[in-house]
Order: sequence, then structure tokens, then C-alpha cells
Amino acid sequence: MIRAGVVGATGYAGAELVRLLSGHSGAELTVLTSRQFAGTRFDHVYPAMSGIVTLVCEEISIERLANQCDVIFTALPHKIPMKIAPELIRCNKKVIDLSADFRFNDASIYEATYQPHTSKELCAEAVYGLCEIYRENIKTARLIGNPGCYPTSALLPLIPLVRQNMIMTETIIIDAKSGVSGAGRSLSMTSQYCEVDESFKAYKVAGHRHNPEIDMVLSREAGKTAGVTFVPHLVPMSRGMLTTIYATLSDQVKADDVGECLSLFYSNHPFVRLADGGRMPDTRHVSHTNYCDIGFKVDEQRNRIILISAIDNLVKGAAGQAVQNMNILFGLDETSGLMQTPFAV
Amino acid sequence: MIRAGVVGATGYAGAELVRLLSGHSGAELTVLTSRQFAGTRFDHVYPAMSGIVTLVCEEISIERLANQCDVIFTALPHKIPMKIAPELIRCNKKVIDLSADFRFNDASIYEATYQPHTSKELCAEAVYGLCEIYRENIKTARLIGNPGCYPTSALLPLIPLVRQNMIMTETIIIDAKSGVSGAGRSLSMTSQYCEVDESFKAYKVAGHRHNPEIDMVLSREAGKTAGVTFVPHLVPMSRGMLTTIYATLSDQVKADDVGECLSLFYSNHPFVRLADGGRMPDTRHVSHTNYCDIGFKVDEQRNRIILISAIDNLVKGAAGQAVQNMNILFGLDETSGLMQTPFAV
Amino acid sequence: MIRAGVVGATGYAGAELVRLLSGHSGAELTVLTSRQFAGTRFDHVYPAMSGIVTLVCEEISIERLANQCDVIFTALPHKIPMKIAPELIRCNKKVIDLSADFRFNDASIYEATYQPHTSKELCAEAVYGLCEIYRENIKTARLIGNPGCYPTSALLPLIPLVRQNMIMTETIIIDAKSGVSGAGRSLSMTSQYCEVDESFKAYKVAGHRHNPEIDMVLSREAGKTAGVTFVPHLVPMSRGMLTTIYATLSDQVKADDVGECLSLFYSNHPFVRLADGGRMPDTRHVSHTNYCDIGFKVDEQRNRIILISAIDNLVKGAAGQAVQNMNILFGLDETSGLMQTPFAV
Amino acid sequence: MIRAGVVGATGYAGAELVRLLSGHSGAELTVLTSRQFAGTRFDHVYPAMSGIVTLVCEEISIERLANQCDVIFTALPHKIPMKIAPELIRCNKKVIDLSADFRFNDASIYEATYQPHTSKELCAEAVYGLCEIYRENIKTARLIGNPGCYPTSALLPLIPLVRQNMIMTETIIIDAKSGVSGAGRSLSMTSQYCEVDESFKAYKVAGHRHNPEIDMVLSREAGKTAGVTFVPHLVPMSRGMLTTIYATLSDQVKADDVGECLSLFYSNHPFVRLADGGRMPDTRHVSHTNYCDIGFKVDEQRNRIILISAIDNLVKGAAGQAVQNMNILFGLDETSGLMQTPFAV
Repeated sequence: MIRAGVVGATGYAGAELVRLLSGHSGAELTVLTSRQFAGTRFDHVYPAMSGIVTLVCEEISIERLANQCDVIFTALPHKIPMKIAPELIRCNKKVIDLSADFRFNDASIYEATYQPHTSKELCAEAVYGLCEIYRENIKTARLIGNPGCYPTSALLPLIPLVRQNMIMTETIIIDAKSGVSGAGRSLSMTSQYCEVDESFKAYKVAGHRHNPEIDMVLSREAGKTAGVTFVPHLVPMSRGMLTTIYATLSDQVKADDVGECLSLFYSNHPFVRLADGGRMPDTRHVSHTNYCDIGFKVDEQRNRIILISAIDNLVKGAAGQAVQNMNILFGLDETSGLMQTPFAV
Repeated sequence: MIRAGVVGATGYAGAELVRLLSGHSGAELTVLTSRQFAGTRFDHVYPAMSGIVTLVCEEISIERLANQCDVIFTALPHKIPMKIAPELIRCNKKVIDLSADFRFNDASIYEATYQPHTSKELCAEAVYGLCEIYRENIKTARLIGNPGCYPTSALLPLIPLVRQNMIMTETIIIDAKSGVSGAGRSLSMTSQYCEVDESFKAYKVAGHRHNPEIDMVLSREAGKTAGVTFVPHLVPMSRGMLTTIYATLSDQVKADDVGECLSLFYSNHPFVRLADGGRMPDTRHVSHTNYCDIGFKVDEQRNRIILISAIDNLVKGAAGQAVQNMNILFGLDETSGLMQTPFAV
Repeated sequence: MIRAGVVGATGYAGAELVRLLSGHSGAELTVLTSRQFAGTRFDHVYPAMSGIVTLVCEEISIERLANQCDVIFTALPHKIPMKIAPELIRCNKKVIDLSADFRFNDASIYEATYQPHTSKELCAEAVYGLCEIYRENIKTARLIGNPGCYPTSALLPLIPLVRQNMIMTETIIIDAKSGVSGAGRSLSMTSQYCEVDESFKAYKVAGHRHNPEIDMVLSREAGKTAGVTFVPHLVPMSRGMLTTIYATLSDQVKADDVGECLSLFYSNHPFVRLADGGRMPDTRHVSHTNYCDIGFKVDEQRNRIILISAIDNLVKGAAGQAVQNMNILFGLDETSGLMQTPFAV
Repeated sequence: MIRAGVVGATGYAGAELVRLLSGHSGAELTVLTSRQFAGTRFDHVYPAMSGIVTLVCEEISIERLANQCDVIFTALPHKIPMKIAPELIRCNKKVIDLSADFRFNDASIYEATYQPHTSKELCAEAVYGLCEIYRENIKTARLIGNPGCYPTSALLPLIPLVRQNMIMTETIIIDAKSGVSGAGRSLSMTSQYCEVDESFKAYKVAGHRHNPEIDMVLSREAGKTAGVTFVPHLVPMSRGMLTTIYATLSDQVKADDVGECLSLFYSNHPFVRLADGGRMPDTRHVSHTNYCDIGFKVDEQRNRIILISAIDNLVKGAAGQAVQNMNILFGLDETSGLMQTPFAV
């Protein structure tokens, strides 16, 4: 049994980790930390899990985490993980960080986007945990930078095509839509029910921090600087993310080529499902699952491809991918603990 | 492996059965029927389960059900099951009927509420599948009348108190609230998004068909005619049912007595959770689970108890309880296939 | 033109007052106050009203309110109005207070429920602004205690029957359901979208502060102490309140008597609509309006009446009734500024 | 008083017309037709308007419409209006058609998109009723083709820039999102609450009938063939439409130029509001109003403009614009009947 600790267990991503790990046959939750709820039983914070997750939340203690855990998930706002991770790595622990702190190998991009970085050497070593793309690197990593939700939803459909030069990267536009849980559990006016209900809006237009993250990965994959226009929107629903991507196809590339490229690429990846029969992805279809559903359509007249992906922002976009990373890191079946049958309704 | 068939698999209760059974380690789905979608793969009707439930829906064939299944769940509107069940019973199959057809041992009450019954002899034999209450009878049944969602939510908190004469049955008032999925998947103006959104209303006030069902069971338990006032309401949400019950306490009965009675009664029932610490049940806490959460408060000045229960109308109120009945019928652990960790969000 | 000031203009009830008064042909908004947004244009706080309400929010100044206003609406949490109102009254201003501070003529009930009262003499004088019931007293008042939303929804259907001794007051049970805006605009975990969405629950069971308010008015109307059991619930929607009331009918009282009583009582009250033809009130039907829709059904077997009312908690339950009170106070048509056609959708 | 008839009054757009016209000081509703509800009082179909709109719905009669109305709104599915409009025009009535039947001056585009047209001569004459753009033509029209909701939301931000050659039309991508009421009131699985709730998805990707409508108008305005990529999405909310538009700026065009162009263009148009101060449009801000809020941001690095507009799909996207057209046609103030203060919540 892998002994797992969750640092920041009472935020939405942390609680989703707790849900997934508590039902994982190969893992055992040993430590949950929460600044706000230290001393309180986890199921008193989340009564849905009443009687199921009865661990008491603790303050962060590196010593205790190192003693009790084989892997530590840090589900905290950025800035804190860069202080904790190095100490845990030093104790020979595996760390899967859900913040942005270790997603950029080049710390200068991180610093331009976020703030000064105090663990630059670990940045260079950390592996970007986009499982379907970097599975081989993940296997031997000590530290995983778990991808952001928007980047996950955008990169999974894009990378196979970028690798095959099927699209013109300078034309990529990403119009993404997310449920409210993506904003986390902290109190905020923009997350209040009466402000969200019957409201649809864009935010951080062409200024979201996930934009440089997407650019970084796409540039690496394209072998040249790639910059996208990225506009996120907020949907009046709790969970789910739908991302609509526009790009001009390279010369001679047809719809069938795109379909074959994606099919081939994802043929042995159980969490990516390609929509067929004209069906398009829907956030309901992936709700509370680790799936990424992908569909596409070519606008023939304008030689533009429209790629659409759907994920659950808290699962494939956060906690689920983190558990998938753990499975890969520890040599378990990649799907362990992640295969609950999706809901019809 | 128990071979299970679902008749009416593409309605909401049927699809929920498919979800639960597809993840059940002791059961195997062998036949799914659907009049509307015969010939279509189940996951084409419910793309959420794409690649997971690939069975093709069929027309109903008694022969095929009898050959391929050990247990048949009938998730159809009332009237049809009373025709199918006798034939399946004759073939020595276990039948768990989710309609009202076999909930009334006394067919005359059924007929007064619904319509003429063509299998009265089976009514007398059928066991009312309220698992926590009639577990012993269920074990040896051939035919289970799976309880209605409202009766389940009302009877679980009431029966322990009625058995102990703790409340005055003639004072019982049941104010129940249900999510929209309770109305099923058939097209209906009252289920259209724009009619439901931001709408809360009562319906079938003191005239709902679950009223006689509740009365029948309570009368049996009270040993005298018991009739309740029952008012259902529709909540703008997909799933979940919260039931608020009012009754006058019998002489000398105090809040502590009620608490002890419920605790004792449900001590070995894993799906009933008693809310403690002043916490009250919430439909979110039981969403997509087989739990029934129960809380209560005594209005001391008026000597009235307020009992509150929360269930998921499609799980404990339909498909989940049906699977629980299957588990009991076949001697499996009562919780098999029903213990996914609840969601935090 | 009546010059109107709104103290606490940026809370939900305050903003609703601003909406209604800005479209009122007989009133003019002159002063808006907001502690949090002093110095900010109102339409920057509520961009929906961009270009329509361009007043700048101010700190509270009694002098300025007295100079610029004929009537002041205090839409603040209780405790503050009891300090402001006396000063404004002293300046010969009319005050309509939306808090609980002046709803209780007997300050001792207020103090038992809320906190010490510093303006007890004004309590005795203040008129409870339930317009349909106390219209005559309102006409000559200086200070109105605008009723709570729950009491409004419960008292309007009950009082006509209580006055005629048609129901047994000791049997009254009130099961009320409110949209989330009732909790106000302050940040709160229970108002966060992800906590509300798909959640239905009771709160403050038999312990809500509106319970003594209802009891006080019913006792006055019944001519004897009347105490009800009151349980509020939270509905996943922004606005609207549906209240289901149960009571035993007095001897010989029939459904028709109830219908006639209500029809007669409300025949000249434009904001109370009696549902006919079996139709039951629905929160959508009164959304953003000052209507109170009332329906009822008699459970003949148990001689119990079920009364159902629907209001918009922010309009008839707060700001709309306050404007109605202003209209009465100043001798305008009671419906001025309150008759926008309701929405179909 | 303008006597107004609404053909198809019980659909969502029709009912919104009824709402707006019933509160319009310069118009009077004289005839409402409804195939489904002929013989039923309008307020029995929409109890929200109980006691306010008591007209009885009728079958369509050209004679009666001609006798009783000065203007007729046809709020029907396409194909029927092309039969009714010519007869009403012959009787010297003004017709405002909310279907697609008279939006295309060139009937061949209509026929390629919809079906054969039986009134081609009227197509050539009809005026496209996008009020802010074609106000002068509307003044003298007999027949108005009221624009589609998506085209309205896309064309208002685009046309001023296209007229000034500020953007490269061949790069335009329109990613639009609509609430569910856009699908109308007809029963449909995709409009059922449980299918919509917590669901976000694209539909008719690059294949929606509003695409040629947008292309037609843009081509006219650009003076050359203009074709856009258009992808509509469905949002889990009742009303509202947010449209995000991407285009490459022409050489030397800067953000300030765009801002000035839009400001100047819309300076005397009361229903277009330009978002300032970094604020972006939100469907809540225009809910139940005739406003179109527009905001924009330039992605400097990629020289791309992102234009965002918000409208209420049933008001500015349908019934409100139709009333605005009536106001222009009859020489009333353009804002008559359309200026209710927007809601804060």
C-alpha cells in the first residue's frame, strides 16, 4: 500500500484527492493537512464523507509527512509548495504538486508570470505531469508539476496535431469555459451563488496565468516559439470544463488526417475518448471522472479546425490526473482508483 | 457472478441501475432492454458511459431474460411489470420491480390508487423492499416491490419511532422536496429547463400516489390505520430528495429518547447515517450514493418532533436500493457495489 | 417627487430598492449610502444598472439624509437602524426600516430574540408594515418596521383565516423554502455556488428569528398566545420563497369557506393573487414582482388545510413591500412603481 | 395607441413580446394567436401574468389580424411567416417577423440554408431589422426581418469595425454561448432539465443556420464576400447570450482606435453600452433588458482583437429588438416600453 498524504486537503482539489484516494485499492490516506481546519475531522468539514474519511486534519509538519507518507500531494496555492517540496524530496519522498510552482522547467517564465522562485534547481528537474504525453518521464520523476486544468484541456487535443505539423501554431485560439469550482473554495464575491446563477462571462481575457503555461508546452512540442490567444469564461455550474480550440490546418491536411492522428495517438490511453458519430463532448459526460473527451470538426471553406475537449476540472484537471501520476510513478495500473462508472444523470 | 438484466434500461432509474451494476464486483450485466432504443448501444444513448457499457439495447424477450439472467430489474412505468414479472417468476428468476405494481400486498389499495391489477396473487407474496426494515423477509423473496422514493425517505426515519410508540401517528405531516430526475426521462413541459430553473413549487398536494403507499406501511407498523398528510415539492436541481416530517411526540418522550431509538435501530445499518452535532441532512451529502442521512430536532414548546431525511432519489430512492435488495437476496454483502466514496463537491 | 434615500444601498435588498425607486414615477433617489463602497458609483458596483443609476455611494450622514430626503429606507443588518432611525424621526423624516429593529412593539420580545434595544419608545410607536393587513395604521406612521420575508409569506395566507377563527392556531406548522439571496450579499460559505448548487437543506430548524415575529403577529390577530413550528429551508435558486403551511380546520369549516374568506379579504388588494383552477403558486410566477400568490388544498380525511404562498423574497419580502409602504405613507397609489409585467420565462 | 397583434404568442419569444407590449405606453395588445392554446386565456398558459394579460389566445385569422391590428409580430418557426406576411402587407399592415423568412434579401441564400421560399419578391423589399445599423431603412419599411439572436450579438460589435476596415474579415471567428430559452418552448430532450443542468457543450459546430445570416450582413458591410467560423454553445441557464469574437487587426490599428470607433458609432444608441474600466460584459447585466453590452481587449502580441458582447437572447435577441423596430417604424421614441431598470440580482 502506498501511504499518501494530502497537504491542503480541505480545498476543492484537496478534497477531490481525498475522495479518489480513499477509494483507491493500492493507496492509503495517512496524513491530511489543513491550516483552516487543523484539529477537525475531515468528515466534519465534508459531511458527505461522514463515517468514511474520519482522519483528523493537521497542521503541516514535514517530519510527520516524511514519516507517514510515501507520496505527498500538495494541493495549495502556488508559493507554498516551493518551500515544502524541497524538504520532502530531500527525505526521498515523491511529491506531486498541484500548484503552478513546478510546472515550468525554466524558472524565469514562472517568475515573469507568478513571483520569485526559491527552488529553481528543482524546477529544472520537475516533470510536467501531463500523463498521456509525458508518461515515460513521469515514471522516474521525484517531483511532478501537475498541469493546470485549462492547459490539460487544451494540450491533450493539440499536441498530437502539433507534433505532426498538422496545424499552424500561430493561428491557435483557445476559448475555454469552466465551472465555478475551478476558483477553489475560498470565499469570493465572484463565487457567490447569486452572482454566478444565470451569469456567463469571460474573465482575465488574454491575461490568464495558464496562457504562458500552454505557450511553454506548445513551444517545446512545436520546436519553436508558439503563443496562443487564450480566453477563459465562467459557466454557471459547479464542475466541468469545455475548451473550444480554433486553428488553421496546414496545407493538404484534411479532416480524416486529423481523425487518424488523434485515434492513433490515443489508442492506448484509456482516459482519452474520441467522440465519434458527430457527437460532441459535453461536460456532463465526464463529470466526476478522469476522462478527457475530444471531438473536432473542420470548417472546410476556411480550412480551419475546431477542436473541442471536455474534462472535469477537479479530476482530469487536478486531482484525478494527480492520482494518475501517482499510479505511473509507483508502477501501478494507470487507471487504479480512477475507473468508477460515469453517471448517466 | 450474478447475471443481471435491466428492463427499461434507458430511463433515469434504469440507467442508474446500469451504472451501479457495471461497477459491481459480484454482478454482470447481461441484458438491457429499451423500447425506444432497441438496437442502439447503451453508451450511444448515454455517452457518459462511452466505452464502458457497450451492450446493445434490446426489445423485451422473456425467453432471453430467462436464459441470460439470474435476476431481472424492471424499471418501467407501472402496469407493464405486472405482466412481465409472473412469467419471469415462473422461470425461477428473481425479480426486483421498481414500479408500484408489487408494493401493495393488498391489491385493492393498489387498484384504488392506480388501476386494475392482473397479478393479485403475486401481490400477496411480494416483499416490500425497504431493506433496513424488511431485510429478513427480503432474503427469501422471489419478487421484490422496490419502494418509492418518497416512501423510502419518509419511512426510514418514521418506522423506528412508530414501532416504539414515540409519536402520535395521526399528527404526521410529510413535506417532501425532490429533484427533477424523479419525474423520469420522458419529455414533459414540467421538466423543461426554463420551466424548472428558479422555480420551486408544490404539486399533487395531498393527492400523490405515494401517499397511500406510506399509509399502508405505517398502518402495518403502527398496528392501526395510519394516514398522513403528504405534500411533495419540486426543487430546481437534478437529483436529491429532502423530506421534512412533523409529528407530535407521545407523552413523556424527549429528544434524547428519539436519538437513542434511532441510534439503536440503525446501529448495524451501513446506509443510514444519523446527523450529529446539530448538523442537518443536505441532499448534496448523499448525492449519487445509497445513503439516507437522518437528523431531527424537537420543538420543545409544542412537543413536536421535526425529522429530516436526505436521500438521492435515483439511488436509495430507486436503483441503489434495488441493488441492495439484490445483494440481500443473493447473500452478498449488503453494501457490494454501493460504496463509492461520496463527493465533496 | 418624494426624495428617497437608501441606507445600505449595495446589499441585495438595498439594490432592489434602488431598482424599484429608480423606475418609480413619484420618487427620486437622492442619497445612497454604503460603508463598503462609499465613493464608488452605484452602477460600478452593479454594472447591470450601468448608465441608469449613476449616483455615488456615500458614508452615512444623518444631516445629509435629513436635508436631501423625505423618506429614508434603512436596509442594514439589525442593530444599526435603531441608532439611525431616532435621529431621522427627530428631523421629521419618514423611516422605513427593513431590519428587525422596529418590528416588535414589545421590545422585550425583540431583546429575547436579538439583543438589547436602545430605542424602546420608538418600538412602541412603530407600525408593522404588512401592507395588506395594516394599511390604515401605515398611513399615519412615522416609522415602519418592514416585515421579514418569511413572516410576510406566512402571515398573508394565515391572518384572514385566523381572524375568522377558521383554523386552530395551536396546530400551525410552517415549512418555508427560500432562494439564496435571502442570506444577503455578505460573503459566506453557505452562499458559495458550489455549496448551494444541487443542495437542498433545512437550517435553523425551529430556531429561526422569524419564528417569534410570526408568533407575535399571530398572537395579536388571534387574541391569544399563538406559537407555530417554523422550519426554513434553502433552495438552489437566487430568488423566491415558497411557504407551505399546515393547520387543522376548526369544526365545520370547509374548503369553500376558506376560499370565500380569502377571496373576500383580498378582493381589493392588487398584490395578492389567489390561485384558481387547481393551479398552485410557483416562485417563478412572482419572480421580481411584488405579488404574493396564494393557493390552498384541504386534506379532507384529516381535516387539515394546506396553504401555499409564493413571493419574491427581495420584493414582496423586502424592497417591494417597503416601496408599497412608502406609497401608502405618502398617499400615492399603492401600486406606483411596482407594476412591471412579470416574466413569462 | 398602436394596436399590436402577436402571432405565436405562447412560445418564449412570443410571450416576451406580450410582456413588453403589455407594459408599453404607446401600444395595446389586441390579438394573440396560438395553435396549441387557442381558446385559452394567455395568463392561464403563463400564470406569472395572471390578471395582467387576460386576452384569450385565438387561431390565426388574417381578417381578424387585419381588422384589429396596426402591426403584427410573427413569432413562429420559419416557413409559416412567408405565407402570412404577404397577406397582411396587402392589407397595409406593418409586419415584424421574428423568424428567418425575411432576413435574406437574396432569397437564394435563404433557400440554400432553409427551404424553398414562396414570397421572394417580399424578401427583396424586407428590411433587416438590426436597429442600430439600419435605423433609417427601418423607418419606411413595411416588412421587417427581425435578426437572429446570434447575428445580433455578433454584428453589433463587428459592423463598426468592419466599416472602418479595422479588422481582417477573413480571420473572424465567433464563439457564441446561449441560454436554453433560445431553443424555444417546444419539448425537446436537449432542453430537459436533467440534460442541461451541469452541462456545457457545443452544437451545430460550423453548421448553424445563423452562420450564413452573419456572412450575408458582413459581406454587405465589408463590400466583399466575408465568411466567418461560427460555433454556438449551450449554457446551463435560462436566458442570456455571450459572444466572443476573435479577429486579426488591420495594420496599424491599435486598441485605442477600436475604442474610439465603437464609442463614436454607438454614442447616440441608448441600447448599446460599452464596458469600461476593464469590466467585461456578463449575461446577468443585460438579463431581461434590451441592452447589448460590448467590451474588448487586444492581444497585442498576436495583434488580435477579442470582442465580447452580451445580450438577452429573448429581448435584444428577439422580442425587445422587435419592439424597438416597432418604435422606429411608428415614429415613437426608440426606447418606449423597453427601459425597465435592470436587476441587480
